[in-house]
Amino acid sequence: MDNKKISSLEELYELALSDIKGKPGSIVIYVDGIPKVSHSNDIIGNCLQEWLPAWFIDHGLDLKATAQTQKFPDFTADFGDKTYSMDIKCWNYNNTPAFDLANFDSFYRTTWSDPSKIFAKYLAISYKPTDHGFSIADIFLKSIWEITGPSRKYPIGLQVKQNNPYAIRPCNFTNAAIPTFKSPAEFIKAIYDTRKIFNEAPERYEYTPEEWLEKLMLEIATYSDL
Amino acid sequence: MDNKKISSLEELYELALSDIKGKPGSIVIYVDGIPKVSHSNDIIGNCLQEWLPAWFIDHGLDLKATAQTQKFPDFTADFGDKTYSMDIKCWNYNNTPAFDLANFDSFYRTTWSDPSKIFAKYLAISYKPTDHGFSIADIFLKSIWEITGPSRKYPIGLQVKQNNPYAIRPCNFTNAAIPTFKSPAEFIKAIYDTRKIFNEAPERYEYTPEEWLEKLMLEIATYSDL
Repeated sequence: MDNKKISSLEELYELALSDIKGKPGSIVIYVDGIPKVSHSNDIIGNCLQEWLPAWFIDHGLDLKATAQTQKFPDFTADFGDKTYSMDIKCWNYNNTPAFDLANFDSFYRTTWSDPSKIFAKYLAISYKPTDHGFSIADIFLKSIWEITGPSRKYPIGLQVKQNNPYAIRPCNFTNAAIPTFKSPAEFIKAIYDTRKIFNEAPERYEYTPEEWLEKLMLEIATYSDL
Repeated sequence: MDNKKISSLEELYELALSDIKGKPGSIVIYVDGIPKVSHSNDIIGNCLQEWLPAWFIDHGLDLKATAQTQKFPDFTADFGDKTYSMDIKCWNYNNTPAFDLANFDSFYRTTWSDPSKIFAKYLAISYKPTDHGFSIADIFLKSIWEITGPSRKYPIGLQVKQNNPYAIRPCNFTNAAIPTFKSPAEFIKAIYDTRKIFNEAPERYEYTPEEWLEKLMLEIATYSDL
């Protein structure tokens, strides 16, 4: 184990590219010490999302899970002088990415109370199921507007449940022919437009969609590190 | 590994009781050979349902998975002179059992074309999550009418989706205060009553609920091995 402390998300990404991209993996179930290899594809994503944070912590990353699992984003990565919000998402390389990026309402509320969360980074990892497990197919480090885009029905890829926006979904961002948002401003506008479409109970929020839009636009205008 | 061939479902059950009841288990995820223990409760049931058939096969059981995963039941166990239909179901000991016993429609159709499937056995195993995995809490070998009963809303425990009966669910059969069906006849009557409640498209079946009931009642009346 290389104990050199990771000092940025980019280093984390480089480490993942060099050490695990293309590498094989497996899931082994033990009962009373007797091992059996899992051949189910259903649990690979969940398992990888457990393995990766543990491995990053081995490499000196100060990674903390957000208390509530439903809350956006899942992790806070602390690099001493700088703290990043981040999420780790995995999907089957043979399918288009369809993981939940964030609960729509949680994203809307979190970015109002802390607009810098809009810059949360997604470490997105695809795996290929194999005969005895999987292999790590590809690894991406992206901002949310780089992996989302307008969908056929809505201003942004969206899972809708009972007429309410439920989860923000990625577009097929690994396909160069699929357009993602071109800027954080375009992404923010799409969230605003979505909020306006589903605006049946505006009294649930202490702010209007217009106030949210203004606050977020100001945030990206003044963010120096983009 | 004990290679003595199992010769009945009862022997399979005895083997599980003696060898794995109370024993600890864990799920380990490897990437490039680096192991991390899973601490998620969500995948224990799925993993156990993979481990158990593999372990039974180690012990000489001729166990075959049914081709379609949606079909009832999941497995056929062949003991040379006798073939059993069986299912393996796992649930978290801290909750009431809430696994799907069978898709309602698949159960209804399968028992019409092969009424003996009504005698399929359920190996039901509860686990307790622990700090680093789980332990096998308890093991049951039951017929379907021994782990089902009337529910508050329907003649049998039932998951309903979009006004259609979707899955047959167990009652809390580990609690002696909760009544299960007293006989296969009572169970069959409950399936019939449920079919009558949800009978919007009778043309989907080549037989009436009354014909189904008669055929199944005849089956249990003539079954010698009960």
